[in-house]
Amino acid sequence: MTAPKVDPALERWFAENDTRIHDELFEFLRIPSISARSEHNGDTRAAADWLHKKLAAIGFTVETLPTKGHPVVLGEWRKAPAGAPTVLVYGHYDVQPAEPLDLWTTPAFEPTIRDGKLFARGSVDDKGQLWVHVKALEAHLAVRGTLPCNIIVVAEGEEEIGSENLAPFIAEHANRLACDAVVISDSSMFAPGIPSILSSLRGLAYFEINVAGPSGDLHSGMYGGAVVNPGMALAHILSTFHDKRGRIAIKGFYDKVRPFPAAVRKAMRKLPFSDTRFKKEVGVKALGGESGQTTLEKLWTRPTCEVNGLLSGYTGEGAKTVLPGRAMAKVSCRLVPDQDPAVIERLFKAHVKRVTPPGVTVTVEHLHGGRPWRADLDGPVFDAAKRALRAAFGRDPVIVGEGGSIPVVGDFERILKAPVLLVGFGLPGENAHAPDEWISVDNFRRGMRAIATLWDEYKG
Amino acid sequence: MTAPKVDPALERWFAENDTRIHDELFEFLRIPSISARSEHNGDTRAAADWLHKKLAAIGFTVETLPTKGHPVVLGEWRKAPAGAPTVLVYGHYDVQPAEPLDLWTTPAFEPTIRDGKLFARGSVDDKGQLWVHVKALEAHLAVRGTLPCNIIVVAEGEEEIGSENLAPFIAEHANRLACDAVVISDSSMFAPGIPSILSSLRGLAYFEINVAGPSGDLHSGMYGGAVVNPGMALAHILSTFHDKRGRIAIKGFYDKVRPFPAAVRKAMRKLPFSDTRFKKEVGVKALGGESGQTTLEKLWTRPTCEVNGLLSGYTGEGAKTVLPGRAMAKVSCRLVPDQDPAVIERLFKAHVKRVTPPGVTVTVEHLHGGRPWRADLDGPVFDAAKRALRAAFGRDPVIVGEGGSIPVVGDFERILKAPVLLVGFGLPGENAHAPDEWISVDNFRRGMRAIATLWDEYKG
Repeated sequence: MTAPKVDPALERWFAENDTRIHDELFEFLRIPSISARSEHNGDTRAAADWLHKKLAAIGFTVETLPTKGHPVVLGEWRKAPAGAPTVLVYGHYDVQPAEPLDLWTTPAFEPTIRDGKLFARGSVDDKGQLWVHVKALEAHLAVRGTLPCNIIVVAEGEEEIGSENLAPFIAEHANRLACDAVVISDSSMFAPGIPSILSSLRGLAYFEINVAGPSGDLHSGMYGGAVVNPGMALAHILSTFHDKRGRIAIKGFYDKVRPFPAAVRKAMRKLPFSDTRFKKEVGVKALGGESGQTTLEKLWTRPTCEVNGLLSGYTGEGAKTVLPGRAMAKVSCRLVPDQDPAVIERLFKAHVKRVTPPGVTVTVEHLHGGRPWRADLDGPVFDAAKRALRAAFGRDPVIVGEGGSIPVVGDFERILKAPVLLVGFGLPGENAHAPDEWISVDNFRRGMRAIATLWDEYKG
Repeated sequence: MTAPKVDPALERWFAENDTRIHDELFEFLRIPSISARSEHNGDTRAAADWLHKKLAAIGFTVETLPTKGHPVVLGEWRKAPAGAPTVLVYGHYDVQPAEPLDLWTTPAFEPTIRDGKLFARGSVDDKGQLWVHVKALEAHLAVRGTLPCNIIVVAEGEEEIGSENLAPFIAEHANRLACDAVVISDSSMFAPGIPSILSSLRGLAYFEINVAGPSGDLHSGMYGGAVVNPGMALAHILSTFHDKRGRIAIKGFYDKVRPFPAAVRKAMRKLPFSDTRFKKEVGVKALGGESGQTTLEKLWTRPTCEVNGLLSGYTGEGAKTVLPGRAMAKVSCRLVPDQDPAVIERLFKAHVKRVTPPGVTVTVEHLHGGRPWRADLDGPVFDAAKRALRAAFGRDPVIVGEGGSIPVVGDFERILKAPVLLVGFGLPGENAHAPDEWISVDNFRRGMRAIATLWDEYKG
C-alpha cells in the first residue's frame, strides 16, 4: 500500500483560496451567536442564516429547520456515485459567552491572528472546525464538480447549552439522516503535530446533596455541641466517597466498568505525556486520584466522584458564629463504559443514605446524566481517517480518550446505528470556554486537507 | 436565718411608680440606637444622652466619656457608709439592627405589651435589663435618700458590635472603676419562674480554612480523577475533627480542660430540662455531639468544633461541571476553662497540616478568639444574689451555664480583679437579635425588686 496523499489538485485549491477561506471564517466568527443569551437570539439566528447561505453557495441543498430552541441547519449533497457511502457531518454554530471580557487580549468577536494562532470566541469551538468541513466539501465541488460520498451536514445552535433539542431532532428525521458514518470535529489533538482520533468519552451523573438540620440557622454558642451540624454532616458524607487508595467507595460503583482493551491502554502509555508538564499546566505540586493508574488512564478510562460546589452558613468576610441550618454540595461522577447514570444514581443515593448521621435529613437530586461512550475503532471510516490524517499531518494519528462528555455522540450512534468518528483539530490550552480562545492556523489548514482526503479514502 | 424579703417601702415605691417606670423604658426603647449602622450614629448618641440625663436625675454624678467608637456613660454614686462595698453595674444602651422589619408583629421601635410580653428591639438586650438596675437604684434613693453600696454604672454603646473599645476603657480607668464586684444583667433565666445565676461562658477560637488546588477552576471532565479536588480535600479535613464518639480528635485539644465541679454537674442534671422539648424547639429528630454527656453538659461544659460556613465552586442553580480551584470553610471551636484560644490555634493548625492531602495547599487563619470563663460562685456577692433572687421570685435561683461567649466578662474580672455576677431576667425564646424581641413584664418587675434587694443583702 502506498502512503496516502492529499490530492495535488485539492492541495492547490486550498493554497490558492487560503485568504478567502480565512476571510469567510472571520465573518462567521464576528457573529456573536451566544446561544445561552436571549439578547443574542438574533445573532444566533444570523449565524444559522449565514451558514445556510454558504452551504447553498457551494452546491448543497439546505434547509434551516426549527427546533424548540435555536434551529438546525441541514445541508445535503446526495449525488455521489451509486454504492458510495453516506456521511453525516455534525458541528455547531453557537458559541459560549465571552465573559470575562477584560481578560481577552483582543476582542472576542474581532478575530485576530498572532503567532500562528487565530484568536476569537468560537475559533476552535466549533465554528473553525465546522468551517474545516465546509471548505473541504467546497474544495471537492470546486475542483472536481462532485464529491466521493454523499454528505449530510447537521449544524446545531444549542451545543453550548446542552443540545437538548438535538436528540429529538435526530429521532424525528432518522430516515433522512440515515448514514454509514458520523464525523465530528469538535475536539482536540493530543499535542501539536500529533493528529488524533478520539475513541472514548466519559459519561456523567450529576447530583445535588442537601443536608437539612435545625429548622433555621442557630447561634453556634447556644446550640453548638448538642445539635448535629449540617456542614459537618455534609463533610462526613463527602469524606466517605473515596477509600484510601483513591477508589470510589460507593457499593457496586465499579460493577459495570468494562476495562479498556489492553491494546488501547498500551498505546496510551506510549503517548508523549509528562506528569511534570501536566502539574505545571494545572498549577499543582502533586497529583492525586486512584493509585495504580497513570494520569491519562485516570482522566480517560476511570470514573470519578468530584465536588463541584459547596455552600453552607456564613461565607462572607470575618467571623459569624452561626450553626447553619442547611448545607449543600454539588457532586458529580464521571462514568466509563458500561456504567449507566440511572444505576449510578441508585447506588449513589443508597450510599448517602447509609452514611448519613442521625440528626440531619439528606436529600439527593440527580440533576443531569449522560452515558459514557467508547468507539470500536474498527471499520472503513476509522481506517480512512487514519490514512487521511497521515496524508495531511505526515504521521499516523494517535488514539486518545477524553475525560469530558459529549452526549450527542451517543445519541447519533444509538439513533442512527452508525459509527461515530471524532477527529478534532484543537490543541491543549486552546481556551475553549475561556478568554483568548484560539485555533492553530496550521491545524486549521491541515484539517481541511485531512477532511478532504477523508472523503477520497472513505469512498470505498 | 429568716427568709429574705424585699423591703416593703421599696416594694410600695415600685408599685406606685410602675406606670412611669414603663413609660420611661418605652422612651428609651423608641431610640433606634443601632450601633452597627453609621446612619444611626445620631440615635446611638441620643440614647447615651438620654441615659446620662436619667442617671443624673436620680442623683448620680454622670459623665459621658468618649471612646474610639460610641461613648461610655459612666454614672457614680459614692456616698455609702464607710466600709460599704463598691459595685460596678455594666449594661449597654446600643441594640441590634431590627431587620427583617416585615417579620415584626409591631414595629421594632414602637414598644408594645401583648400577653405579658413587652415587645421592642432592645427590650431584653439590653435596655430593659439596664433599666431594671437604674430603677432599683432610683427606688433606694427616692425612698431612703441613700444607697447601701457605692455604685458605678458603666453603660457602653458597642456591645452589639464586639465591645472593641471597652477593655481599653476599663484598663484606662481601672483605678476609678475599682470595685468589689461587677454585676451584669444581660442574660436569661433558665425558664419562667426560675431565677438564675450564670456561672460559666464558653470561649471561642474562630478559624477560616482555605484550600487551594489548581491555579484556577478546571473542567471536571478534562481534569477530574488526576487533580486533587479542593472541595473533597476540605471535606476530608473537616471529617477528621471528630472521632466516632463525637469527641474532638485534635491532638492535645482537651489537655487544659478543667472538669466542672461535680456539684455543678449534679445541679445541672436536676434542672427541669427536656431533650424532647429541646429537639422540638430546634426542629430536629435526633441530637448529636459527644457521647456520655447530657445535652446541658454538651452546651455549657464541653468544647465544640463546628462548621460555620462552606464555599467552593459552583453554587447556583443546576449543574456546572467545575473542578473548583478553591474551597473555604469557617470553623470555630467553643472553648471551656482553661482552654486558651492561642493554644487551640496552634493545635488546630498543626492538626490541619497533618491531615492535608498532597496536591493542595491549605492556609488557616485565626479570625477571632475569646477566653472561656467560669465563676467560683463563692463570696458575698453571690450569696447576696441568691437571697435577693429568692426574695423577689419566691424560690432559690439555679446555677446555669451559657454556651455562647461574652468577652467583656473576662475583661472585667481580669482587669479589675473583681468577681462578676451574671444575673439576667430574659427568658428562652425571647428573640434577642431576632424580630419580635421581648422581655417578660413580670420578670422586669421582679428583676427591679431583686436588684434593689441585692444592695441591701450585699452591704455586708
